[in-house]
This record gives sequence, structure tokens and C-alpha cells, in this order.
Amino acid sequence: MGAKTVKHMVSAIPEMLKQRDAQFFVMYASSKNANFYYATRFKVPDPAFYMIGDDGTDLLVVHEMEKGRAERESRVKEIASLKDLGFYELLKEIKNPVQALSQTIFRLLRTHGARKILIPPDFPSFLSLYLKERMDVEVIENPFSKLRAVKRREEVEEIKKTSNAIVRAFQHVLKLIGRVKTCEELRNEIELFLFKEGFLAEETIVSSGLLSADPHEVGKGRIEDHVIVDVFPKSRGSGYYSDFTRTVVLHKNPEIGEMLDAVIEAKGKAISLVRDGVPAKEIHDTVCDTLEGMGYGTLRNKASEGFIHSTGHGVGLEVHEEPRIAENDDLIRKGMVFTIEPGLYYRKIGGVRVEDTVLVKRSGCEILTKFDDRPIL
Amino acid sequence: MGAKTVKHMVSAIPEMLKQRDAQFFVMYASSKNANFYYATRFKVPDPAFYMIGDDGTDLLVVHEMEKGRAERESRVKEIASLKDLGFYELLKEIKNPVQALSQTIFRLLRTHGARKILIPPDFPSFLSLYLKERMDVEVIENPFSKLRAVKRREEVEEIKKTSNAIVRAFQHVLKLIGRVKTCEELRNEIELFLFKEGFLAEETIVSSGLLSADPHEVGKGRIEDHVIVDVFPKSRGSGYYSDFTRTVVLHKNPEIGEMLDAVIEAKGKAISLVRDGVPAKEIHDTVCDTLEGMGYGTLRNKASEGFIHSTGHGVGLEVHEEPRIAENDDLIRKGMVFTIEPGLYYRKIGGVRVEDTVLVKRSGCEILTKFDDRPIL
Repeated sequence: MGAKTVKHMVSAIPEMLKQRDAQFFVMYASSKNANFYYATRFKVPDPAFYMIGDDGTDLLVVHEMEKGRAERESRVKEIASLKDLGFYELLKEIKNPVQALSQTIFRLLRTHGARKILIPPDFPSFLSLYLKERMDVEVIENPFSKLRAVKRREEVEEIKKTSNAIVRAFQHVLKLIGRVKTCEELRNEIELFLFKEGFLAEETIVSSGLLSADPHEVGKGRIEDHVIVDVFPKSRGSGYYSDFTRTVVLHKNPEIGEMLDAVIEAKGKAISLVRDGVPAKEIHDTVCDTLEGMGYGTLRNKASEGFIHSTGHGVGLEVHEEPRIAENDDLIRKGMVFTIEPGLYYRKIGGVRVEDTVLVKRSGCEILTKFDDRPIL
Repeated sequence: MGAKTVKHMVSAIPEMLKQRDAQFFVMYASSKNANFYYATRFKVPDPAFYMIGDDGTDLLVVHEMEKGRAERESRVKEIASLKDLGFYELLKEIKNPVQALSQTIFRLLRTHGARKILIPPDFPSFLSLYLKERMDVEVIENPFSKLRAVKRREEVEEIKKTSNAIVRAFQHVLKLIGRVKTCEELRNEIELFLFKEGFLAEETIVSSGLLSADPHEVGKGRIEDHVIVDVFPKSRGSGYYSDFTRTVVLHKNPEIGEMLDAVIEAKGKAISLVRDGVPAKEIHDTVCDTLEGMGYGTLRNKASEGFIHSTGHGVGLEVHEEPRIAENDDLIRKGMVFTIEPGLYYRKIGGVRVEDTVLVKRSGCEILTKFDDRPIL
């Protein structure tokens, strides 16, 4: 992460702090938390404390044992260890590590002149409730979630690598279908193929028959007349995801065939709308309009079967992140990466879905997971 | 998870609720949270709400789309969807989803007669701060962390499977050392071997030369005179971990050899102490006594080099969980599974570590990761 991004953050967050009359935005998390990792670029298994201020403060507090590595690897300007902050003296005095940690962080904030801090929704309660009794604490949407929605060039490169691996894995799938008889075997083949190439796919959806009517079902048992294959690996190196779905028809089934035609048409119309400045809602509405126009139910018109989820979601360090392509007020911006994934689900027929990950350009978009909508076996 | 375990939980938690004059213990998390998964046995990517009460309440609140699956798959007695609880009407009225969710959960708690609730330390602040203004909220150590420390028979079986896979992977390592030249290649071979067998290892430590003096360094570059191999995969099916380390000496190095002798002796002494009823501190002290007796520094005597971490940690749905084998008041109990992993680290020499995962028995323990302490190439 270059100096430019730091500047970008440092310009977006102080603005927000001023508006809310707060001095710091703080996080307490491990690098499993994508916002924490994005802000610090530091891989750490145990939670650490990060604060960013309107006065240029950019400080990461880690365990003593992690300090050297944090100084080498993290993006953050200033690193302190709990030892530096007097945590161990305090612990010896008051015995309770949770209390000692809370007090250490409170003292740190006070030393920096904090009267009001902003915290993200997932900030741990042990610390927020302690601080709330001693200063003003307000929960806000994590500003890094919004920052993460627009990808930098290096991030796009990583998502492209993952997208290309998916395409190769799916070519492998097409060679196997027919030979591999169960959803479990096919899932295993896909995940192993990707792992060998440096990507980790978990809970890959390979869902067939009536079970495919449940969009969250990962699938099991014999591969029947059609199969939804939804692959969303992350790079084991960079951590960036991509997301892709095709529905493969093994034996002609008129109802499934019509549903598949419908979602392919809806996906095409939605993708043709994607460009800098378009409202997310407009993309979602196009999918709903298209499917409703063909007589299918949608969540928008309160149907319990049909198109019962949203049109898409951002993809990056998390497989589901900002923006949401749904009924909301989000504006699509150049550099965003998200999925378009219309599906139709009927308990007595089964489900179909097609999905691409796209990169938003000024006057259109680039499909990162280019593949036939009707893959031929 | 059988009826017995539900009874176990339902007997441990109401007791704690009564002591603190509270009606419910609640969690809001996804199944990535091991306590949430342990309590509900429900795999869910997005956060869900779980409450357990002194009145027999055992209730899971999920999104509408997950309700059917929750009823089929989860252990919890009663499932409700956000729709059942009137979330969507509320959302239409107040627009803000975070507010609508907070209010829905507040109403649910009130309907059940909650005046005081207990929450775990990592409970999200958006909800705790909202509830705190409307009822008594107290942060406690998550009771499921303690419950998870003592493993059930089925859990031990899963940890044994993972342990056996580690041993097979390490046999594979011994065949490769000498042929494989870098830490990165060896790590990749180990992780691929395990993945093929159904286990996921990430951040596997293969650390050589002076870099191995940092216990958290995953390792890179050429494999030099000795290499620490620390493997801690989880089963991709059950999610249960195991943890194992050996230090392989490729070329004789007297200092490394002596350090390795020392940690092997310390591990043996520690393991010989493990039995039902022994204090964790006693095991940790034995390691410190042994190493200090040989002239090495320890964290206990404030050394910054030498044995600078604790003796071990529980292993289960998380790779680091209860109990901690360190300076604390924990008592070791039959059925606990944890590591014994003395190490020595010197910046100018490098590091060594040996580690086994053990299962506590009434009058001793079973080593689950049985392997020569001085593996022969």
C-alpha cells in the first residue's frame, strides 16, 4: 500500500471525525477482520488496537512479541507495544487482563487528548462499554468498508488473478462433469484444483436437483439433470476473492431451461447498465423488471419463490462487501468490483443462477470472469 | 451434538445467570465464531442472534432465507426468523437496518422478560450500546469458552483424525527435506498434502536460520542448518484442529543441538505431569524450571531471549483456545486437549521448538501427535 493510499485515508477519515466532533476512529481486531487488515496491512492472529486521528495520529498497538514484525510489515506510521504503554505494570497491580487492557487503552486515548471516539459496529463490547463510561463513544459504519469498495490498481490485479484461476477451474469442471457422479466429489475436485494453483475455495456450491432451490445450500448427493457451480476462492497469498457461478444442464429440462434463459437475459441487461455513476438500485431493478416481466416472482414483489436474493455484492478482501447491488442509495463508482448474480429458485423445480464479477469503468464495465453463459459439455 | 450436551449447557449457564441475577446469555455472531458454532452447531456466514435463558429458552434468530436450514441443521431448540419477529415492518418504518435490527432484538428480549443480560467480550458494540441504554448489560467471559475446553468423545475423535493427518504430513516432510530447498516450497508441499487428505493448514511455520529466532515468523528463503516445522491444520469437514512442531537438524550445529536437547527434556517433564487436577501453572513452571536450570532465560525471569512464550494452549474448534498452559489459576481437567510446546529463541543463533498435542486422562495423558522428538532424515 503506497503513500497515496495513506493520504487518501488520512483525508477521508479526519473529515468524518470533524463532522462528528470526534478526535479518533479506533478498531480492536485481528487481521481476520478485513477492515483492520486493509487499514494496517498487518497480518496478526490476535486482536490489536489501531487508532487514526484528525491530528495525523496513525498508531498500531500490538503485543511485545509482534512489535518487530509490525514495524517491518505493517503500513502504519507508529507502532507501540503493550509493554511500551505500561500494560504489564498495570496487570501486576490489578491482576485482571481485560481490565488492564481496557485501562491501558483508555490512558492511551486520554494521553492523545480523546474526548470522543468513533468505533465500528463490530467493535468488541468489553472495550466499548468500559470506554463509554469514561468518554463519548459513537458507533458508525466502518469508514474502511466504504474505502475498500473502490479498488486500487494493485487490488484489481489480485482480483483478476483469482478470477483467472476460477475460469481455469471451471474449464476443469466441464471436463469432469459426467465422469464425476456426486456434488461432493465435484466440489472436492474444484477446491483441490484451486488449492494447487494457490487459491483457497471453501463451501464451494455444487448443488443439484431440488436441493438447488435453496440458494445457500452447498449441495450433496448425485448430480442430477442440472447443477449450480458457484466458486468463490481467495488468493492464499494476497487474500483477494473473486466470485463466479454457472448452471450446467446435463439433461434437457424445459422448466430449468426457461429459467436459465431468463437469468442469463437478466444478467446481460444488468451488466450493460454498469458504469461510473449509476445507482446500485437501478441495476437491481433491471434484474427484477426483467424477471417479473417474464412472470417470475421477486423479493421486491414479496414473492417467496423466484428471485429471492439481491443482485450482487462487492468482492475484495471479503467475498461479500460493499457495494450491495440491491434496493439502497449506493452509487456505483469507477474502480468498484462486484457481482451480478440473478437466480431463480422454486422448491418443486430447483434453482438456477449465473454470476459474474465485474470491474466498473468510466463508461461501462469489464467482466473479470468471462465464460460462456451456457457452458457446453 | 447429543441431548446430553444440551443438558450440560443448560445446567452450567442458568447457574451463572442466577449468580449474576441475569435472565439471558446472548451472542450475535456468525459460525466463524467458535463459541457461536459450538453453542448452535449451525454453519452460517452472516451473523445470527442466539439467546439461552434460565427459563429453558434456547433460541436462534436467523435471516428468513436460513430458517429452513437452521431447523434442519442446528442443535438449537427454537428457530425464529427476522421476519417472524417483525423486522421488515420495522425496517420499512424506520429505514435504518442497524436500528431496526437493534430494536427487533430489544423487543424480543423484553418479550421474554429480560431485565439483565450477559454478553461475551466480543459482542458487537452496535448492539450492546443500544441495549445498555434500555436494560442492564454485563460483559462476562464467554461460558462456552470454558465448556469447549473439555472435549466430548466425538470431539476427541475429530482431533485425533487431524493429529494423524499431521503425522502423515510430517513423514512426507522428512522425505522431502534435502530435496526441497526453500521454506516456501516445503510449506506448500505440507499444505497441499494435508488439503488432499481433507485438512486445511494455513500459515504453516517452516522457519530456518536466524529468522527462526522469531516464534511468529512463518519463515522464508533457503532451508539452512535447521528448520522449525509447526503444522496446525483443521479438518475441512469438522473444523477441529491439532498442533505439532518438530525441529529438524540438517547439519550439526552445537548451539542448536544443545537448545534442542533442552526443549525436548522440558517437553518430556511437562508431559509427565499432565493429569486430571494438576494446575496449568505447575506444568508451565516445570518447563521454566528445567530451562532456567540449564541456564536459559525465560519470560518468567524477565528475559527477552530464551523461552519467551507460554507452554501451551487448548486446541479444538480454534487452534488457540482454553486452557492456557501458563502462569494462571486454571486447573487441568480430564478430557482437555492442549499443546506442550517449549521453545528457545536467540537472535544470534536462531530458534528451536518441539510441540505435541495431548489429551488429558484421569492419571496421565495421551500424546495425540506421537513422533520422534529428533526426527531422522
